[in-house]
Amino acid sequence: MTDEALGWEVVARDGEARAGLLRTRRGVIETPVFMPVGTLGSVKGVRFEELEAEDLDARIILGNTYHLWLRPGADVVRACGGLHRFTGWRRALLTDSGGFQVFSLSHMRKLSEEGVEFRSHTDGRLCFLSPEVSMETQAALGSDIVMAFDECPPGKAAHEAARASLELTARWARRSRSRFDELQREGADAGREESNTRQSIFGIVQGATHLDLRRESLERTVEVGFDGYAIGGLSVGEEKSVMYDVVEHVAPLMPAGRPRYLMGVGTPEDLVESVARGVDMFDCVIPTRNGRNGQAFTSRGRLNVKNARWTADTRPLDETCACAVCRRHSRAYVRHLYMTGEMLGAVLLSHHNLAFFLDTMRCVRQSIRSGEFTRFRREFLEGINSGVG
Amino acid sequence: MTDEALGWEVVARDGEARAGLLRTRRGVIETPVFMPVGTLGSVKGVRFEELEAEDLDARIILGNTYHLWLRPGADVVRACGGLHRFTGWRRALLTDSGGFQVFSLSHMRKLSEEGVEFRSHTDGRLCFLSPEVSMETQAALGSDIVMAFDECPPGKAAHEAARASLELTARWARRSRSRFDELQREGADAGREESNTRQSIFGIVQGATHLDLRRESLERTVEVGFDGYAIGGLSVGEEKSVMYDVVEHVAPLMPAGRPRYLMGVGTPEDLVESVARGVDMFDCVIPTRNGRNGQAFTSRGRLNVKNARWTADTRPLDETCACAVCRRHSRAYVRHLYMTGEMLGAVLLSHHNLAFFLDTMRCVRQSIRSGEFTRFRREFLEGINSGVG
Repeated sequence: MTDEALGWEVVARDGEARAGLLRTRRGVIETPVFMPVGTLGSVKGVRFEELEAEDLDARIILGNTYHLWLRPGADVVRACGGLHRFTGWRRALLTDSGGFQVFSLSHMRKLSEEGVEFRSHTDGRLCFLSPEVSMETQAALGSDIVMAFDECPPGKAAHEAARASLELTARWARRSRSRFDELQREGADAGREESNTRQSIFGIVQGATHLDLRRESLERTVEVGFDGYAIGGLSVGEEKSVMYDVVEHVAPLMPAGRPRYLMGVGTPEDLVESVARGVDMFDCVIPTRNGRNGQAFTSRGRLNVKNARWTADTRPLDETCACAVCRRHSRAYVRHLYMTGEMLGAVLLSHHNLAFFLDTMRCVRQSIRSGEFTRFRREFLEGINSGVG
Repeated sequence: MTDEALGWEVVARDGEARAGLLRTRRGVIETPVFMPVGTLGSVKGVRFEELEAEDLDARIILGNTYHLWLRPGADVVRACGGLHRFTGWRRALLTDSGGFQVFSLSHMRKLSEEGVEFRSHTDGRLCFLSPEVSMETQAALGSDIVMAFDECPPGKAAHEAARASLELTARWARRSRSRFDELQREGADAGREESNTRQSIFGIVQGATHLDLRRESLERTVEVGFDGYAIGGLSVGEEKSVMYDVVEHVAPLMPAGRPRYLMGVGTPEDLVESVARGVDMFDCVIPTRNGRNGQAFTSRGRLNVKNARWTADTRPLDETCACAVCRRHSRAYVRHLYMTGEMLGAVLLSHHNLAFFLDTMRCVRQSIRSGEFTRFRREFLEGINSGVG
């Protein structure tokens, strides 16, 4: 069943970098791919029409199980026919398991073998999340790619703590897989066409910054068997060089016949550097969050629209960008909108930033296919370090 | 010169209601027309691409001289080549004179024959606005339709106060016209193609709720001579029946050979009722402001998305609406976005509301052209009073 739910094929390699095709029941996704984050069922500030338009053309976005479980609740999404019908997004969706948010957002966590009890960050309500509840919620959401429920230790967790966490995550991976399979069978038996049938599921490798634990976590996750594998628990405060080390060490060990997903990462340079180390999939809130904070990513580095030097600058945010924002609007205008608190300031910056991330990945894919990834990588990094003129 | 700048033709009448064509240097506008308000150079939450798309197709929007004069400042807009180039909006623009905002937003006003001294509502800066400064600013903005600088008395101004205000407005109308003409000549002499050449200018009728003063104000404004005439100082707190009375009394007396503009009005019913009394043009922040506050205008009246009854309602905001929002999204989803504070809640509601206003005016125009305005008006009012099911 999972073979039907997700197809995967590597079409080109350049060093460790891979160009692939991920086939979901809702369309084909070329990898390496960046997935915009739609926390609560919307990519903040960017309408689906824009995400589908040629300049963005996002093939897959994320939803957050933790957030959607709290608001509007799995029952509401289920009653509306799943997250696709609820939101109106028709392309592929990946949902995370809620694990990361429980550990980063909620209050008064009580962790047990069974799961985690916590207070909601929105209303203080007492909640309980477990591998089973996460799988049931993700079945209700009907995402195309489900993530196993994991425990996320702090980025700087000591060896012993990281090992205990890893083992819990391994047991939770087995329970996730098992409940997921039951739900898929139930859905198939009930003859349901959408929602919780033909979903696929990814396992998550933990182990903090300890390479031996990362290896062990990978082995135990692969032992359970998933449609794809993710590296979790990075970009949580550790040094950038440490993150690159972990990725460089772990990614090539991940099954070549399955997609590799680096969760919650990162900046444009992180994406390119991690592709070079064998990663296929990424997600991150940076393009939209930084957009809301007045920052534009460009081919010559970051541009802060708050800077007075752009007050009457009629050039687009990025002179080499062909996105809808850069084709139409000037730095002066985007700055004006941002400085006066107009909603469209954040909207336009988020759109442009997503365009930059998605276009960067488009260039990455092309360069891998044409065997010119090394050159692309060098020129890209030179560009973004050259400074906005 | 003004004849070139603005063409006007009535193509059909049905009672006092008129269907017309307003020709600006930036396209033809069918009237009666609703003009979305772009206070600071952006219609809050709605991108220009959306305003131009078929479901909205806004042919003309407003800019606010007061706001743009304060931020980013006329010098910045001028340096960027005028408001069209600064914002990226290519269709027609009308700018108000700043008069209304000075009297409604600013602090510590000091009114004199020369103009009005006040403190900016954003930073307390001491500012001075006069007919001349307003004309110079609107020339820098390069709007297609410029408004004369007027004084707005309170809606409930007594007869004597309203008369004094009216007389000041009449003298300011003459000064506005005179400075406007100079600026047009200067622009033409300098061979400028855009910006401050071939603008048109409208005069504003004041007089509060006193019909004799309204008549007098109209006569004195027509005496100066403008490309179009506006009714100002309504919808500022007076009873709705009083507003309709003033419009019913004044609009038919306004020159038939010029467009008639009712400033800052109003609700969908206000629009239809005022068209029935002879008005051609409208602007109002209601669709976007109420959208940001969670209210949707529909063919069956207003819908408050905060109401829990929509929690799992998969129907569109308005079942008879063909806008991009109603074609794609449910009440449940829009409510969810609004309740969780997602920016897109306000964006989608603003879009739908503008679609409703603009589509209502499309229906108004068609019904006038086909001689069925009376029936349309009755059915429309029945519809919006029938209650959202």
